Amino acid sequence: MENWDVIIIGAGSAGLAAGIYAVRSGLKTLILDEKFAGGTISDAPTIVNYPGFAEISGGELAQKMTNHARKLGATIRDLETVTALNLSGEIKTVTTTRTTYGAKAIIIATGSHYKEIGVKGEKEFRGRGVSYCGVCDGPFFKGKRVLVVGGGNTAATTVLYLSGIAAEVIVVHRRGGFRAEESLISGIFTKPNVKIMWNTEILEIKGEKVVKSVTLIDNMTQQQSEIATDAVFVQIGEAPNSQLAIANGIETDEHGYIKIDIRQQTNQPGVFAAGDVTNHPVKQVGTAVGQGITAALEAYSYIRKPYYRK
Amino acid sequence: MENWDVIIIGAGSAGLAAGIYAVRSGLKTLILDEKFAGGTISDAPTIVNYPGFAEISGGELAQKMTNHARKLGATIRDLETVTALNLSGEIKTVTTTRTTYGAKAIIIATGSHYKEIGVKGEKEFRGRGVSYCGVCDGPFFKGKRVLVVGGGNTAATTVLYLSGIAAEVIVVHRRGGFRAEESLISGIFTKPNVKIMWNTEILEIKGEKVVKSVTLIDNMTQQQSEIATDAVFVQIGEAPNSQLAIANGIETDEHGYIKIDIRQQTNQPGVFAAGDVTNHPVKQVGTAVGQGITAALEAYSYIRKPYYRK
Repeated sequence: MENWDVIIIGAGSAGLAAGIYAVRSGLKTLILDEKFAGGTISDAPTIVNYPGFAEISGGELAQKMTNHARKLGATIRDLETVTALNLSGEIKTVTTTRTTYGAKAIIIATGSHYKEIGVKGEKEFRGRGVSYCGVCDGPFFKGKRVLVVGGGNTAATTVLYLSGIAAEVIVVHRRGGFRAEESLISGIFTKPNVKIMWNTEILEIKGEKVVKSVTLIDNMTQQQSEIATDAVFVQIGEAPNSQLAIANGIETDEHGYIKIDIRQQTNQPGVFAAGDVTNHPVKQVGTAVGQGITAALEAYSYIRKPYYRK
Repeated sequence: MENWDVIIIGAGSAGLAAGIYAVRSGLKTLILDEKFAGGTISDAPTIVNYPGFAEISGGELAQKMTNHARKLGATIRDLETVTALNLSGEIKTVTTTRTTYGAKAIIIATGSHYKEIGVKGEKEFRGRGVSYCGVCDGPFFKGKRVLVVGGGNTAATTVLYLSGIAAEVIVVHRRGGFRAEESLISGIFTKPNVKIMWNTEILEIKGEKVVKSVTLIDNMTQQQSEIATDAVFVQIGEAPNSQLAIANGIETDEHGYIKIDIRQQTNQPGVFAAGDVTNHPVKQVGTAVGQGITAALEAYSYIRKPYYRK
């Protein structure tokens, strides 16, 4: 069994920040990710709120953080999926599609995944007009009509992004107002090619090989309608990737987010969590980074028990 | 009285990150600082652990964050000292050397200040050989012999920095080992012009107009000695700038650090705290940023009470 001081599961902003601090603290550090390193920020067209970078693409920031962690000496193994954990005991084990590792401490930074709306046609047309990532798939719909479902920050950012590509962006939101930063909302209202349908939900996504239309319902009047569209971007939020942690006795809140304290500790000694997978009230690049740093330094204290920590 | 939605006291990493998020949330945002905007990172020769910047000078990062907050619309008034606070009530007031402001929420991000060793000669020779900032004053001692007091991360960073400027760096540390990141420690041990005196304390700083020597004591053998030096860099840590907050009933721990919860709330409704002034276990740029972001979004929720927050 390959042994490490700390294994960080997830190479997003939280995991990479944790990696940077873990290696600088002298810990033998492995970062695992089932996808490419970089995390969900890789999908963001533009990030303007990570302090220090007035404007940067998510992909570029993800690359900078990944290179930063690697340069300092963290080992990052991406495209390697964790299949089992054993978190009790002094040495914890992490089994992946490749091998089994041992570690003195574990940092869970597995992030979250896109929520589905759960309607007919959604799974069938995924990748054929149904998308969960504006910057990934938006450019395929240049000059077309697209639909965005949702009303939060992610939806609003996607709407702004798509308004510069698509001929027409229709926002379908089940509520009567956005739950997004006011600067995003005011940006949307200046776009002549964005139409907003409040209090509206999707009943079905229809098509032939690719998406052709959606059936909508006005949730105030119950009136149904069908409109043509080339794409449906589902942006209704995320759910935590905490299934393996839960199966190993890690406590979560009622939505499955891992409960942490101010030191990023979980209920299991030597197991820390950071970033979008936790129940921290804010899910931003900058807060994921702060949590990752804290988790790494607390993991260091847990392993090395320096004199200045009781 | 000039009215704002949120006033952030302190324009360091935490305060600037809070400012970025407060303005983007649509809050009328004022940031005050008694010094120049940028905070204590301005003093750091090199920062290699703020994720995304593999290497940057503290001054440059401080400038980037300041510009970032200003570009987004935060009003920053530096060189304006807060002299009184009234934190109870719906509208809180902040009195400065210039005027009195009102605000619906306050974020305290006042950071910390350098601790003094408290020996004879320290105050007398401050600015004349006694310094608390290596990058500020180090270049004055090119080719000279300098002394660094302390054994933590800040001391270790300063030792490395000074070893490239001074002819000789003597480290005086009251303990028998460093309490710093291992990569810093191993860096120090490779420097031929660094000499470490373990278990040693300064009894007095002597000079004539400027520092000339120090009297030392070995705290194991009690043996005293005097050595010549041109400078004494005191790097023994920091204490929180929480006096005004304490006077207004904000709860702190036994060292004066403001007690916060996971939402950066203090014991006073509408008053949040972020960064080095808090009792958060980690004091780093990246954690200050994360806390500032959280404080701003929680201040937003406190003021605007959006539907998604109870």
